[in-house]
Amino acid sequence: MKTAMAINSIFLFFSLLFLSSTAKVIPRFPSSVITPEKLSADLDSKSGQLYKTKYFTQILDHFTFTPRSYQTFQQRYLINDTYWGKKNSPIFVYTGNEGDIEWFTQNTGFMYEVAPRFRALLVFIEHRFYGKSIPFGGNKKIAYKNASTLGYLSSSQALADYATLIIDLKKNLSATDSPVVVFGGSYGGMLAAWFRLKYPHVAIGALASSAPILNFDNITSAYSFNNIITQDFRSVSENCYKVIKESWQQIEDTWRNQGGDKILRKSFKTCKNSSVDGLEGWLFTAYVYTAMTDYPTPSNFLNPLPAYPIKQMCKAIDDPKTGNDTFAKLYGAANIYYNSSGTATCFNLDDGSDPHGLAEWAWQACTEMIMPTGGNDKGSIFPASEWDYNDTASYCKDNYHVSPRPHWITTHFGGNNIEVALKRYGSNIIFFNGLRDPWSGGGVLTNISKSIIAIVEKEGAHHVDLRFSTSEDPKWLIKARQKEVKIIRKWISQYYQELGRPYF
Amino acid sequence: MKTAMAINSIFLFFSLLFLSSTAKVIPRFPSSVITPEKLSADLDSKSGQLYKTKYFTQILDHFTFTPRSYQTFQQRYLINDTYWGKKNSPIFVYTGNEGDIEWFTQNTGFMYEVAPRFRALLVFIEHRFYGKSIPFGGNKKIAYKNASTLGYLSSSQALADYATLIIDLKKNLSATDSPVVVFGGSYGGMLAAWFRLKYPHVAIGALASSAPILNFDNITSAYSFNNIITQDFRSVSENCYKVIKESWQQIEDTWRNQGGDKILRKSFKTCKNSSVDGLEGWLFTAYVYTAMTDYPTPSNFLNPLPAYPIKQMCKAIDDPKTGNDTFAKLYGAANIYYNSSGTATCFNLDDGSDPHGLAEWAWQACTEMIMPTGGNDKGSIFPASEWDYNDTASYCKDNYHVSPRPHWITTHFGGNNIEVALKRYGSNIIFFNGLRDPWSGGGVLTNISKSIIAIVEKEGAHHVDLRFSTSEDPKWLIKARQKEVKIIRKWISQYYQELGRPYF
Repeated sequence: MKTAMAINSIFLFFSLLFLSSTAKVIPRFPSSVITPEKLSADLDSKSGQLYKTKYFTQILDHFTFTPRSYQTFQQRYLINDTYWGKKNSPIFVYTGNEGDIEWFTQNTGFMYEVAPRFRALLVFIEHRFYGKSIPFGGNKKIAYKNASTLGYLSSSQALADYATLIIDLKKNLSATDSPVVVFGGSYGGMLAAWFRLKYPHVAIGALASSAPILNFDNITSAYSFNNIITQDFRSVSENCYKVIKESWQQIEDTWRNQGGDKILRKSFKTCKNSSVDGLEGWLFTAYVYTAMTDYPTPSNFLNPLPAYPIKQMCKAIDDPKTGNDTFAKLYGAANIYYNSSGTATCFNLDDGSDPHGLAEWAWQACTEMIMPTGGNDKGSIFPASEWDYNDTASYCKDNYHVSPRPHWITTHFGGNNIEVALKRYGSNIIFFNGLRDPWSGGGVLTNISKSIIAIVEKEGAHHVDLRFSTSEDPKWLIKARQKEVKIIRKWISQYYQELGRPYF
Repeated sequence: MKTAMAINSIFLFFSLLFLSSTAKVIPRFPSSVITPEKLSADLDSKSGQLYKTKYFTQILDHFTFTPRSYQTFQQRYLINDTYWGKKNSPIFVYTGNEGDIEWFTQNTGFMYEVAPRFRALLVFIEHRFYGKSIPFGGNKKIAYKNASTLGYLSSSQALADYATLIIDLKKNLSATDSPVVVFGGSYGGMLAAWFRLKYPHVAIGALASSAPILNFDNITSAYSFNNIITQDFRSVSENCYKVIKESWQQIEDTWRNQGGDKILRKSFKTCKNSSVDGLEGWLFTAYVYTAMTDYPTPSNFLNPLPAYPIKQMCKAIDDPKTGNDTFAKLYGAANIYYNSSGTATCFNLDDGSDPHGLAEWAWQACTEMIMPTGGNDKGSIFPASEWDYNDTASYCKDNYHVSPRPHWITTHFGGNNIEVALKRYGSNIIFFNGLRDPWSGGGVLTNISKSIIAIVEKEGAHHVDLRFSTSEDPKWLIKARQKEVKIIRKWISQYYQELGRPYF
């Protein structure tokens, strides 16, 4: 178990690698609950689409001048000019994360909802090596083959891609004076914050939602991530927490007994035989991703989920009907995450499906994105274990023949003593964090200066602010979004003022 | 002439490529006039040296993770701890330019002179691919061979080298809380400013002296550089300006006449036959570098020169003894730059000597450092000509098989509308410029904010503030340095205050 979780933790970024399975294909578009129906009338009337798809010829390596560095690839970006005022009106850019940009766009309704108020152009740029933005002729077999090609997948290159694309786009649109605001959630939020820090001449501000930029280099405790998950469950039900906490031993004990594998297979309705690590990973994934997406309304980001899904999980665990049957309780909880429709007849624990094309995060997590999150202290809902850098390093050596550079992110982007480093430096960044989100432990949770602001919501989950609004949104969420809009409006006003132009 | 100067301009950065010759070897250490005798007693008593030499194992490519990127090389840095207070006292770092770091160190006496007041550690880091900091096993034949190896010579890689080295050094010295201030002149000044912009978590401030960060992408007129040289001469003597301005035609006319080559050879005492372009380049170099180093006291940066050498050149040109003999006048002027000792018997115009190891700047000027400076309008002291990007591009294609990326520097570091971009962003940068320096046209000449400050000296030349002080320094220079010290002191005080520690 310990090893399995340690290895899992390498992959466990945001919406990362579905090591465990889902019983059915996740729809690529938000379910009807959150479909932005109210927007559709405004959108491109011909197609009714959220965006048009375009491509930009991007350079492979911005930072060297070797013959290979000059190779180019087609970078996808999505654009919506429905609301755009042109004439130097604002441009809102989403700095794409580790996956298909269409998926992130569809889950970033906030930008669509605020665009009309700002008469903003919307642009969503796909991160290199994901979706359809594949270097080496778009050939994934070559691009993903080994370190000699995957080596060009890095955050710095991605940021330079965004700068290059934005500058070129503005020029082509005769909008060189348009203020650009960048938005991003999760890794995309880290990129948005870093983009503002590294390219202040390209973006006047950044909304970095659930961006754990401090989850590097031991700035944030390796226990933090799982401790927040622990707290998420515990705050709902002490019994729920205890049942899950104690279940791991019970699963392992059962597994070791003769016929135990059959008991487990039957209890969890697995489609075929699985290892005990596979089963535990499957449950672990359900708990972690449910904690990340413990949204106040029904959602369909990672999997279709009801409102406050942790409450629902704990309701299943605490259900008196299951008496003392721990496995029945866990099965009920897992069903919340894996079987919202109730139609699954069995579960494939390791089907390796990756509907949003997130797999290459594993490469990033083996090179620069060394984010210690896998530790479990005594109180953890998961078995006690230490995060060990050597586990990561040896995994990466085995799988990619690559050595991580664990200090590079803090060397390049900072993080240590960030409150001193940025107190009199930089401006115009919003760090949003929801404290139910396990990644919030690595976020910026207090204001650094008058214009580097932390918005922290106790009841919030992973970049909930960026989602389409719904009629059931709680007040705190409505207010948080209002605060964000107000701050962004201030940045834009100041920019026009300094440029000597009227707002629009 | 036009072509020769256009090509020259590619190389003409700061102290760059000595396309033309010197009659003798330039001593590697400042001459006795400016030797910091008063410092010697303080310095390392055993060796009496300005610094100790150390090496750091540096990674070849910070921004990719290809197998090759992991190659390492030995990066040289010079260190002086004579004045260091340890215990988190300040660290002053020189961000090395395009040449041997010993040479820049010897010409940056300012850091030595202010170090005792700040109890600062002094560190001078050599730029990759220069001096003894050569990747690919230190083998220049391999490193300089072609774009596949030279491709790793770039400003971004250099900045990342500096960040990596500084962080490691602080850790090893148990000085992680020491404030770092970066210093640099010329290209080194650009690097210092950019370092503060890109790595504010590593350096709390930057003194960027004569850093033409706006000499890119048509932000600064291509005529600016030579117009300032023109003004330098013209302000001393209108006749001097006219003689030089009209001389180019006369040289070419003479060259075209039968026996003209012999006349020119005799007039300029060239050791062997030379082309007319070679002669003109030799004179051009003398005027340009004398303008750059038109210091108020005797100096020996590029060549040994008297105080205010342009005055001396014009004195030679205006000398009534030479009557109407233009060539005798020019020869007299050239002697100021090439023959201060008066011992040269003849001159090698194209000896290609490069005592400070600056040659690889030509690579940088063919990739990212596309600085339009070669234009000459009607009033120029040089023949009228247009700067043409295509000349640069075709030169670079022919010589390195490489295409420049003329927009990369402004994409990565900014520059357009810098006063808007940085008005509410960033802090703690001093831009020093002397207006007699032809590079000052591409400098930041007005304050951008309360802490991004321009110090502009009408009588100043190329990074004169960074030089060792002398007893003959004019008041404006003394005051400019005092102002710099005062500002740096403020940065450091603020840093300690925010860190919650006493100053020392």
